[in-house]
Amino acid sequence: MTVSSARSIEAVAVSPIIEIGDVEGNLRRLSAALAAFDDDTPRLVVAPELATSGYVFADRAEAARLAMRRDDDRLTRLASVLGPQTVAVIGFAESDGEVLYNSAAVLTRDGVRAVYRKSHLWGEEKLVFTPGPDAGMTVDSPVGRLGVAICYDNEFPEIPRALALSGADLLALPVNWPLVPRPAGERAPETIQAMAAARSSRLPTVIADRHGVERGVEWTGGTAVIDGEGWVVAARSDGAATATLQIVTGDKGLGPHNDLFADRRPDIYRPHSS
Amino acid sequence: MTVSSARSIEAVAVSPIIEIGDVEGNLRRLSAALAAFDDDTPRLVVAPELATSGYVFADRAEAARLAMRRDDDRLTRLASVLGPQTVAVIGFAESDGEVLYNSAAVLTRDGVRAVYRKSHLWGEEKLVFTPGPDAGMTVDSPVGRLGVAICYDNEFPEIPRALALSGADLLALPVNWPLVPRPAGERAPETIQAMAAARSSRLPTVIADRHGVERGVEWTGGTAVIDGEGWVVAARSDGAATATLQIVTGDKGLGPHNDLFADRRPDIYRPHSS
Repeated sequence: MTVSSARSIEAVAVSPIIEIGDVEGNLRRLSAALAAFDDDTPRLVVAPELATSGYVFADRAEAARLAMRRDDDRLTRLASVLGPQTVAVIGFAESDGEVLYNSAAVLTRDGVRAVYRKSHLWGEEKLVFTPGPDAGMTVDSPVGRLGVAICYDNEFPEIPRALALSGADLLALPVNWPLVPRPAGERAPETIQAMAAARSSRLPTVIADRHGVERGVEWTGGTAVIDGEGWVVAARSDGAATATLQIVTGDKGLGPHNDLFADRRPDIYRPHSS
Repeated sequence: MTVSSARSIEAVAVSPIIEIGDVEGNLRRLSAALAAFDDDTPRLVVAPELATSGYVFADRAEAARLAMRRDDDRLTRLASVLGPQTVAVIGFAESDGEVLYNSAAVLTRDGVRAVYRKSHLWGEEKLVFTPGPDAGMTVDSPVGRLGVAICYDNEFPEIPRALALSGADLLALPVNWPLVPRPAGERAPETIQAMAAARSSRLPTVIADRHGVERGVEWTGGTAVIDGEGWVVAARSDGAATATLQIVTGDKGLGPHNDLFADRRPDIYRPHSS
């Protein structure tokens, strides 16, 4: 028998100014953004992908100079400002010896709880970073079992699905979405994909994106909070988005006859021919 | 080496009046709708789920009375009006001995080419129909390799993904979407899921929905054509939607560094724990 439970948390996606190359300034601005979350509220805060370094590296050598180890004291200090029920997910350029990863650190006030290394690399990231070994990550946290993925990861429907099936109650998604053409009046396509994934698995999703322009790359400004039904409940193209999320554990039911997970038929999910 | 090719087809989703219980009238109206497609144009035509019978059965006995075998002469006659390059996908209540399926017939002018039996049943369908054994179907057709799924099937991201990985060039999706609450200005959630699935796998999708009300159930009117980038290129809440679709076979590339399929990492797609 699965026991279900529901509770409310505060979900915040922050998008402070990030300057490529200015690690100290980026950390200072991130710390200032996180300092507001020092109370006892159960809360998830998400910051963008590569928030400490910036994204549009001139070359791999620049990325290496801007990267930090996961045990870097600066991450510990960043975490120390958080309230006791707040968990933060921050994208950073991670170095491990000579190897670089596009990573996200899960922080609580005690420090770095876990690190996820992006496993689906976009564009010239492939010239800089090594892909991580895992399809997203789940980690138990003050706001429930937290799923973590980074940007392009979430455009593979397998990723949010695997995280939800692994028990993730919600998804933290740091991104750097370059603006792409879209029909007038439409949301960014990546937002639509996140909405669909959230609904398919009842997986509320908190997206922190960049805004403005970096070295000629214009960002989408897709910062948003999506609820477990797949609706955008808060969005902000140039700053922070905040919403209350209902976090439901162990209940994927849809009325008297259906269940998002129990109705799956994994025995028949495989490529086939006519 | 994969050889890629691209060509244009006409995509049409039809939504004639369907009256629960009036099989002969429904077939007559379907035939009248299909009769317009007797020329040489390469074309996919999709009609709604359970288009021959209606959807809101009083009980299983009524569904059994309205069902037909896949070799029923009436389906052959319906097919006979089609042009030589036209393929039609029509939802029907299928009987096979005592067993009932919620099925879709793939028709060309020569008759019934293939039948798909819905494998994810919604609501009280579970009291009427037996679930089919396959996660969608692919069939080679005049418009390319055609994927077929029915309604709730497509809300499982595994289904369109498996069809695309099986080589489907496009997806025919007969549906009966009951209207559900949604925020002002939003599309139906099922449309959003279909847009996301189309984009994730470059799988153009042709959706034929009902409109109006049947025995108290109001339909969404989600009839639409979605292109391979996931955008709605034609939609009609109360009738047919038509668009030209680019059908691309064997090319899932995204610029110089990425590919929707080659970037997948199936070796790591599995539930995991923290």
